[in-house]
Amino acid sequence: MERLKPRTLSGFMELLPAPQTQMRRIMAVLRETYSRYGFTPLDTPVIEAAEVLLAKGGGETEKQIYRFTKGDADLALRFDLTVPLAKYVALHYNELAFPFRRYQIGKVYRGERAQRGRFREFYQADIDIIGDGKLDIANEAEIPSIIYSIFTKLGLTRFQIRVNNRKILNGFYAMQGLSEKSGDIMRTVDKLDKIGAEKVRACLLDEPLSLTAGQADEIMRFIAISGTNAEVLSALESYRGRSELFDAGVDELSTVARYLGAFGVPEENFAVDLTIARGLDYYTGTVYETTLLDHPEIGSVCSGGRYDNLAEYYTDRQLPGVGISIGLTRLFYVLSEQKLLNDALPTAPADILVLPMTDDLSPAVTLSTALRAAGIRTQLYCEAKKFKAKMSYADKLGVPYVALLGEDEIAAGKVAVKDMRSGEQALCTTDEAIARIREGVAALESGKIILG
Amino acid sequence: MERLKPRTLSGFMELLPAPQTQMRRIMAVLRETYSRYGFTPLDTPVIEAAEVLLAKGGGETEKQIYRFTKGDADLALRFDLTVPLAKYVALHYNELAFPFRRYQIGKVYRGERAQRGRFREFYQADIDIIGDGKLDIANEAEIPSIIYSIFTKLGLTRFQIRVNNRKILNGFYAMQGLSEKSGDIMRTVDKLDKIGAEKVRACLLDEPLSLTAGQADEIMRFIAISGTNAEVLSALESYRGRSELFDAGVDELSTVARYLGAFGVPEENFAVDLTIARGLDYYTGTVYETTLLDHPEIGSVCSGGRYDNLAEYYTDRQLPGVGISIGLTRLFYVLSEQKLLNDALPTAPADILVLPMTDDLSPAVTLSTALRAAGIRTQLYCEAKKFKAKMSYADKLGVPYVALLGEDEIAAGKVAVKDMRSGEQALCTTDEAIARIREGVAALESGKIILG
Repeated sequence: MERLKPRTLSGFMELLPAPQTQMRRIMAVLRETYSRYGFTPLDTPVIEAAEVLLAKGGGETEKQIYRFTKGDADLALRFDLTVPLAKYVALHYNELAFPFRRYQIGKVYRGERAQRGRFREFYQADIDIIGDGKLDIANEAEIPSIIYSIFTKLGLTRFQIRVNNRKILNGFYAMQGLSEKSGDIMRTVDKLDKIGAEKVRACLLDEPLSLTAGQADEIMRFIAISGTNAEVLSALESYRGRSELFDAGVDELSTVARYLGAFGVPEENFAVDLTIARGLDYYTGTVYETTLLDHPEIGSVCSGGRYDNLAEYYTDRQLPGVGISIGLTRLFYVLSEQKLLNDALPTAPADILVLPMTDDLSPAVTLSTALRAAGIRTQLYCEAKKFKAKMSYADKLGVPYVALLGEDEIAAGKVAVKDMRSGEQALCTTDEAIARIREGVAALESGKIILG
Repeated sequence: MERLKPRTLSGFMELLPAPQTQMRRIMAVLRETYSRYGFTPLDTPVIEAAEVLLAKGGGETEKQIYRFTKGDADLALRFDLTVPLAKYVALHYNELAFPFRRYQIGKVYRGERAQRGRFREFYQADIDIIGDGKLDIANEAEIPSIIYSIFTKLGLTRFQIRVNNRKILNGFYAMQGLSEKSGDIMRTVDKLDKIGAEKVRACLLDEPLSLTAGQADEIMRFIAISGTNAEVLSALESYRGRSELFDAGVDELSTVARYLGAFGVPEENFAVDLTIARGLDYYTGTVYETTLLDHPEIGSVCSGGRYDNLAEYYTDRQLPGVGISIGLTRLFYVLSEQKLLNDALPTAPADILVLPMTDDLSPAVTLSTALRAAGIRTQLYCEAKKFKAKMSYADKLGVPYVALLGEDEIAAGKVAVKDMRSGEQALCTTDEAIARIREGVAALESGKIILG
């Protein structure tokens, strides 16, 4: 028979068992934390009608989208989880309770140019809170507090959630008479981290923006505002009274900063930062970015913000919301590349491998059943191989424990439990084995998922 | 702005929050049980190169597949989880330990004609054990014991795992000199449940099969063998000595039946059944089907078997395996239609909704943080609405508890916890609230997922 060379498409992450287990562990923390905050899990189709997905139309997205026909249907793969959420909320509006809080961890598709660390299929992990007509500002502080909770639980300490408010930015540019250029200016200012202040100023002066030196200086002065959160907020006070929008933004940002404290987010983990704007046009208030302080080159690993109208393409209803998205596949890739994933956590498929040393497997089956009933992940080895081959399999799997069950152990109603790390071996009753493995596995599992 | 009518494609399941939570609960049982048996979680891409996915080629599959191009690439969506597994194992052979045991719960795609209860996007939940060159027969008993464990945990009692062996069937037809027609005969016999014995016999006699009356009677006699597992196995003994393949099949089936007992599967939950064959050609030994005894019309909800060569299209290596697949979306749909899902289990996004009765949310935030730290799923209600609107929201969400926090409670360092089912309200300290909610939620969660 002719063989076909097996391959996985480039831009598609396919993990080996050990890293897959690490990925799963991260996902479990996300799911558990989102649930802890009262978000309901959603699962929308990967395929949608192309016209539904592209209702907003245009832009980079349309070029990257996977779009195809099947029979008469014009279909597309979702490129984010926000558009499907908008559709979902508009479609099921009457059956939902608002504020509607959902999380979704799902794969999305973008046919980007293949490139190291760029994925065409990748997980996003989103939370959003959608209001019906109105949504209180306190939600905008809760969202980053959830991100804080997740990152802390994962083991990260050196990260910062950066918060800004688009009303402040839009208000500020309105004061300068630059409302129409504000989008382009923000995109330029957004490059500050990458190209530096000098070049940003030059871009502002250059075509097509062509600002005056006075305007550019005013902007550079504004985005240079820094210091503690209190200092930044206080500096903003001096601009008050010239734009209602600006003043509203300062009020909101102050409220968010205050509640973030109440939500238990320490000062060092969030920063009021006037330079962030988020590219997407639909953010209208608070915006977030999250950076790993020791890896600024990664950029934001978790971003989002407040929008006034989630589903305007599908419904007349005003559905304001706030949400944030973790680019999970990319985050995982980066953590892995940077060797920040804790390899000490168990990644074997089982806590213990039961190795029968007799032809009749029944006693080993009984032992395995008892271990599983006690919640221990147990693999029964069924193959008739030599002892050495069995132990080498245990090594390759990386199981922390092996149970040896031969004639002698069976006769004594015991089992020999071997700790694969220390090499120690002990003859135990089933109950003793359970206690020993439980304790050992709990110790192994107690480490943080992410280092540093 | 022009609005687009939001819609979800037909054949794509999109659940409301409450059923989605039920679905998630079922998936959690699957994941946990598979892990408990030492299977590693895999997650392969939804998109593969079309030539890789269609290496086997031909058949119904090719017509149903979602296939499209992006740039130069000829792509397709996976239509099952077995072909991607074959590719994975062939591709990563050197990095895997064999037997390789993996589970995967993932969406697959088939562009079938849309029809009630037929899905184009649906979850399969697969486990497979892949050997390198060899794989012991005991694995073929472990697989159905896992299915037994899952169904029992879900709450089902009236189900039966039906087991047969293709070697017995192939050997039997060889004895009759009907090897070449055996595939077609088995497909005919497979209709026994649907069309009855008379019509099956007629089909055997008719073209294109055109069996003699003697052959047809022999077959009808064979498939009529029934009774307890011991009785069926004993009836098979009388055919021994005429086909090595048949004898090997009887040995295997007897071994599987014996080990199934050791694995703790009660007689009433598995049946040796000579009528099942499974359509797929690649099964070579043990085959399984699982039926809900009170809903035979549903057909098999979980099927699989032993195959000798998982990845023959990608590698010369002999990789025998055994696996089983639950058609999760269809199972969920049927359970839901039959009202077999236990509605008494909580489906609200939170265990408790915290309702602040003061303008300053800080005390409510502090309470929420404490509840969450204790593992209680807590939603903080941030909106400035009237009390009645708040309570009506709690009702709509279906949260089992509400925490009321007004000036008086805050001053007393307490919180009023209302049980939404009984209507009872109690003034508690935070610790008392935690204990009360934990206990109440545990009681609510203690029910079975599936009724009957």
